[in-house]
Amino acid sequence: MFEQVTVIGPGLLGSSLVLAIQERGLAKKVVIWARSEKTAEKTRKKLPVDRVEQDLENSVQGSDFVVICTPVETIAAILKKIAPIAEDDSIVTDVGSVKALICQEAKNLFKSISASFIGSHPMAGSEKSGMENADPKLFINQPCIITPLASEEELGIDKLLNFWTELGMVTYRLGPKEHDQKMALFSHLPHLVSSILSHSISSHTEDARQLSGQGLRDTVRISGGDPNLWTGILSENKNNLLESLDKFEESLKVARSILTGQQRKSLCSFLEEAAQFKKSLKGYE
Amino acid sequence: MFEQVTVIGPGLLGSSLVLAIQERGLAKKVVIWARSEKTAEKTRKKLPVDRVEQDLENSVQGSDFVVICTPVETIAAILKKIAPIAEDDSIVTDVGSVKALICQEAKNLFKSISASFIGSHPMAGSEKSGMENADPKLFINQPCIITPLASEEELGIDKLLNFWTELGMVTYRLGPKEHDQKMALFSHLPHLVSSILSHSISSHTEDARQLSGQGLRDTVRISGGDPNLWTGILSENKNNLLESLDKFEESLKVARSILTGQQRKSLCSFLEEAAQFKKSLKGYE
Repeated sequence: MFEQVTVIGPGLLGSSLVLAIQERGLAKKVVIWARSEKTAEKTRKKLPVDRVEQDLENSVQGSDFVVICTPVETIAAILKKIAPIAEDDSIVTDVGSVKALICQEAKNLFKSISASFIGSHPMAGSEKSGMENADPKLFINQPCIITPLASEEELGIDKLLNFWTELGMVTYRLGPKEHDQKMALFSHLPHLVSSILSHSISSHTEDARQLSGQGLRDTVRISGGDPNLWTGILSENKNNLLESLDKFEESLKVARSILTGQQRKSLCSFLEEAAQFKKSLKGYE
Repeated sequence: MFEQVTVIGPGLLGSSLVLAIQERGLAKKVVIWARSEKTAEKTRKKLPVDRVEQDLENSVQGSDFVVICTPVETIAAILKKIAPIAEDDSIVTDVGSVKALICQEAKNLFKSISASFIGSHPMAGSEKSGMENADPKLFINQPCIITPLASEEELGIDKLLNFWTELGMVTYRLGPKEHDQKMALFSHLPHLVSSILSHSISSHTEDARQLSGQGLRDTVRISGGDPNLWTGILSENKNNLLESLDKFEESLKVARSILTGQQRKSLCSFLEEAAQFKKSLKGYE
């Protein structure tokens, strides 16, 4: 259990984290940082926290655990402000979906202080966003990848793994670069493909609204995610994502050629391979 | 209410249809046709029907309503056998996902008899298949498109629309060719794209099993559909599907170019357009 946890940013993940920490009693006190007065006010009314702060320095004072839950492109700037004021021996983490750049920045910022930074990526998003959709169960049975650099101490790593496990997550440990490569394929490519599909049908909104079955609805669901948030994620992982897109286009070429040539057996094998992959995933009822 | 309904084929749709008809009392008697002895035996044990027949002629005898629930490429052959033996003034329909070819065939087969064929497409599939997954609620709030030819009588059309409405479906009426064009875009393209995505990641099964979030799982869900069934559907609607795939590839080119050029504003607009489309669909909780 932590003495005091600071959650930076009351979006979907930050708010859900506050609820889950309180529900499971993982901290004696919970402080949240919100940038605007309006959001701070809303947070005071809606979330069970001990303090709402608008000043970053005040928000991390006295905390042995800090979780940065802001959009991925803002994390480096926040780290720069937090590093000099973080409590001795405290652990700082984030929930960003792209890790290499952030972890490299953090390495420099934290190298000569006793607080440590270890990146986290709890894969617990949704196409919904904001405090309104906060849910303490968001984390249950979902994967969480932590991305320590070789220099991190095992004690901090254990504490961090333990924290995410207490929230019900299944934890993994990867290097930041490896994490970004894998996420390009398993998370950012699916998001982009779903968005491309929506984009390609978007001039037929009225028809699609009436004539869509569960197939279309499932496939485009994640394309409903916050465009600003995802612009940050896809941009920051651009190079890996373009490589993943190459793989997708290779498969697309195969499919088009099979379909054009009316090769029924090959089409069936192609679909069979896809179906086997889908069946190998867990997380379906 | 019908005197006697014959359901041809006890797959997911046929079995669910039997359950829904019985639950809502839409027929005095329900007969089902199953091809193999093994399936017929299983059907007798599992489904609440008055008769299970393996002979097509016996199965439609005495029925004023016949619903063909077999894979799309088998429907024309079954229609050829049923047309000469269908009861006078009976209505024959099917549940195939592609309509132009079937309706053209049926037009010739039914032109000089008093039974009539009107195509139906209840969009109530799932990535699951088979009698084991039968569910009388499968149809509720899902779209059902009927595709009468200009020559069909309004009385039969009304009866058919009424039947699907009684099962909880939201009915639409389209010409067979128009139906196939729209389904290429709203159903067959999403299936193909989902399968291409699965195919392109399928060499990373073990990693994906561990590191997949809800986004990947939603996007590849329909790629788990029966490969044989979908080979038939995609093949039969090949030309329309290739045109839809052209549209998808146009959007893909735009996305790739924006991403490569690091055009953040354009990327955000692209994702915004996709998100707006997703939000315009109904059927989310």
